[in-house]
Amino acid sequence: MQTNEMAPVQSRRRFLAGAAAAAAAVAAPSANAAAKKVAFDKIFDVIVVGSGFAALAAALRAKEEGASVLLVEKMPAFGGNSAINGGAFAVAGSPLQEKEGIKDSPELMLKDMIRSGRGLSHVDLLKMIVEGTRPAFDWVVKYGVKFKPFVQHFGGHSVPRIMQTLESTGGGITRPLTEACAKNGVELHKRCLMEDFVRNDSGRIIGIRAREGYLFPNEKSGVPMTYGARRGVVMATGGFARNIWFRKQQDPLLDERLDSTNQPGATGEGLLKMLSIGAAPVQLDQIQLGPWSSPEEKGFGLVSQFNTIAGFPMGIMVDPRTGRRFCNELADRKERADKILTMIENGKPVYPICFTDSKGVEKAQTLKNGLKYNVIHKFDTLEGIAKAFGMPVAPFVKQVEEFNGYVKAKNDTQFHRPLQLAIVLDKPPFYAVKVWPKVHYCMGGAAISPKAEVLDVMGKPIPGLFAAGEVTGGAHGASRLGGCAIADGLCFGRIAGETAAHNKAASI
Amino acid sequence: MQTNEMAPVQSRRRFLAGAAAAAAAVAAPSANAAAKKVAFDKIFDVIVVGSGFAALAAALRAKEEGASVLLVEKMPAFGGNSAINGGAFAVAGSPLQEKEGIKDSPELMLKDMIRSGRGLSHVDLLKMIVEGTRPAFDWVVKYGVKFKPFVQHFGGHSVPRIMQTLESTGGGITRPLTEACAKNGVELHKRCLMEDFVRNDSGRIIGIRAREGYLFPNEKSGVPMTYGARRGVVMATGGFARNIWFRKQQDPLLDERLDSTNQPGATGEGLLKMLSIGAAPVQLDQIQLGPWSSPEEKGFGLVSQFNTIAGFPMGIMVDPRTGRRFCNELADRKERADKILTMIENGKPVYPICFTDSKGVEKAQTLKNGLKYNVIHKFDTLEGIAKAFGMPVAPFVKQVEEFNGYVKAKNDTQFHRPLQLAIVLDKPPFYAVKVWPKVHYCMGGAAISPKAEVLDVMGKPIPGLFAAGEVTGGAHGASRLGGCAIADGLCFGRIAGETAAHNKAASI
Repeated sequence: MQTNEMAPVQSRRRFLAGAAAAAAAVAAPSANAAAKKVAFDKIFDVIVVGSGFAALAAALRAKEEGASVLLVEKMPAFGGNSAINGGAFAVAGSPLQEKEGIKDSPELMLKDMIRSGRGLSHVDLLKMIVEGTRPAFDWVVKYGVKFKPFVQHFGGHSVPRIMQTLESTGGGITRPLTEACAKNGVELHKRCLMEDFVRNDSGRIIGIRAREGYLFPNEKSGVPMTYGARRGVVMATGGFARNIWFRKQQDPLLDERLDSTNQPGATGEGLLKMLSIGAAPVQLDQIQLGPWSSPEEKGFGLVSQFNTIAGFPMGIMVDPRTGRRFCNELADRKERADKILTMIENGKPVYPICFTDSKGVEKAQTLKNGLKYNVIHKFDTLEGIAKAFGMPVAPFVKQVEEFNGYVKAKNDTQFHRPLQLAIVLDKPPFYAVKVWPKVHYCMGGAAISPKAEVLDVMGKPIPGLFAAGEVTGGAHGASRLGGCAIADGLCFGRIAGETAAHNKAASI
Repeated sequence: MQTNEMAPVQSRRRFLAGAAAAAAAVAAPSANAAAKKVAFDKIFDVIVVGSGFAALAAALRAKEEGASVLLVEKMPAFGGNSAINGGAFAVAGSPLQEKEGIKDSPELMLKDMIRSGRGLSHVDLLKMIVEGTRPAFDWVVKYGVKFKPFVQHFGGHSVPRIMQTLESTGGGITRPLTEACAKNGVELHKRCLMEDFVRNDSGRIIGIRAREGYLFPNEKSGVPMTYGARRGVVMATGGFARNIWFRKQQDPLLDERLDSTNQPGATGEGLLKMLSIGAAPVQLDQIQLGPWSSPEEKGFGLVSQFNTIAGFPMGIMVDPRTGRRFCNELADRKERADKILTMIENGKPVYPICFTDSKGVEKAQTLKNGLKYNVIHKFDTLEGIAKAFGMPVAPFVKQVEEFNGYVKAKNDTQFHRPLQLAIVLDKPPFYAVKVWPKVHYCMGGAAISPKAEVLDVMGKPIPGLFAAGEVTGGAHGASRLGGCAIADGLCFGRIAGETAAHNKAASI
């Protein structure tokens, strides 16, 4: 299984057209009729495309199961968009939950995720995720991932169940997993663009056409190569948040004016390639906006983490026109983003203000840099916050007093927010940020089975093709809960790696 | 342009593989390398697939523009799902509106449609529809379509603008248009399944593979034939409401238990074929439920028309548990269906009751048969209605009195329904029906340009491929307004026919 045989290269280019151009052969076949086999530059058992959570988990699991594995990443660094994600992992039944007496279970997490999915969730896929979080957690810990020693409470979850990497980024997972892949013999190619699939005469996926030395986004850069995959190709290429034409087709409101938290490479070609060979699209217009980002910085930025760890669970968010709260700060992302997006006046956004106090920011690692880059703002008094953002002082102060009363009474009668982590906001200095949503995550994607097989438009698995993570669709329905991208990526990545490694080998 | 040349048939089967199987050629090309052209059984300028509103309009317009045209329909009769639709056509600025002093315009209709689309509408497509309704109306009248002599008011429209065929079905349009096609020389093939596209070496669509004598749903029935299309193929194959696997992928709530108003052939293969060759999918999970159908009969049935023409505009709908109204009976379809679907108790639907009086049913052509088949129920008193459906009598009677007050005051303070057509409900006998939504229309579909060109996943037109009607996506966003399926089908069918007829001819 470990043999990486080199196939003869001569005359390869002549009859290798790739699926996209293959239709040509119908009308004017130009290929050598005598040829029986594709000449691959190198053959593996499993090829994984992408290098985020799902890709790395798939590659490493396939390798653990004895497969020879190639992983290709188009960008100049491994980690994909996962590397810049917040590193928050929803685990149902973590050791720290047990230690802190937080009662949780896969069933409870499933319930939370189904609620957030608003009836659109593919429950068969969700079950694989919630049941897989604890095994995936233990597995990444084994490979050296380090988590903070406290559990966090993210919006939409009924209990605190978020484990966050020490680094507060997904890089805290992708880096150790990339290292583990390298150490265990996964062949890792960066700046290698997957251009197309290679299929055999029965339609089975048996490899990829790629460009080595590719320089994003120059389509003509790099050298064409062809790699064989005896057992399967795993697509873990992420979402299309940075593909403005395609996201606008699905949701015309998400136009050029809306920023995205994603890295520039999140352009979705992997998904588009799968769709173009007949993979069934699922719920592509379900595109999530992150409700915690700041209009004062680009991309994911520093404020997103400040809000998830401090502003929302330990502070409050108010409408600057009234000084009043306007939603449950721990509602799920869709509910919060939808509420915020209604705050438009004369065609211009009215940025809500989120703040907490000196106790609330204790765990906010991005505070220091946020202050330095002037996207988190420090105030000695509540009046100071109000004045800085043009809020009416008295109603705002009264709102804070009211909220402090809810915290003491352990009951938010205003918006029914769970208050497990909430604090009385009375310890200056205070820290405040402006908030505006950004395009964050594609719930939709290619249809897969619970075994991570890619399904075609008729519902049949496309032989030799597997997928995991954000490139797939259905699990999260209308809204993914925070911390569930890592859960999905790692759990389904592991499943895809296992399924591909044990898939019957094609003769190529 | 009228020449239907017969291409040589010999050895055709040998090198014709079709796009779906074409990938095979990459790995093991079996085709004759010397062959340069596909051998078509017959060549046309334009091939139209489907025979509903969009297909017939496209075929007839292309013919008017001088093209030779083939239209293929897989079912044993022409008309598709359009033939069993309610025949209601939203026209912005009809002669009857002018006569009755109803102020309307394409701009007002656009506003209504955008509101119903809930931010998801592709406004560039909508504009083509609203501007095209009056020309399309005049055009079908010219071909012999007859409309009722009164304008109706459907849910979500801000003014009465529905013209309905005399027959109260779309057949009142598809029949005359089919006849006009035949009379004008469009070649019409029924029981002819489009199986696949034929593309030339540049990827342009130059024809179709079909099965003549096909017997739905037997995939192996019929005789394979290959037809060429010099100027283009127009896909007007409708929605996928009857494809339960695919619709469940998009919206898992729409499972086997939910009936559909559509004919059995609405299985969406035309859409799936386009997606499989790279057409961009748009908003496929936006699937409309008709809020006016009855759980006491199958399919579209008799009650749907009863409710749209009588029950909703001239009666009221109540919750049988309370005897009270629970929504604006003229809200758009999504709002009403969503409201009704919340009425579940112990996992079972609680069917709302819709009723009107003897004046309200005057225009309801399906009344007689509805009574005969016991799906419309007649009562001499309001008490009789309440008792028959287990409703509390006093609150129900009080609700009717309240509503009558709104009608007299011309102001529905309860649910802000437009009352232009509403009547005081006090003239027995009364007629009542049970209501439960059914899967009715796919707002999503393949991406098209305002010229009806099918766009691929990168946003580029697929050469030689056009589409119109329900198979396309985006115009209606999250919810299509009543009467706008005919508007979309006829307007974009006409556009597709024109674009295809004037498309540069391929050399085939």
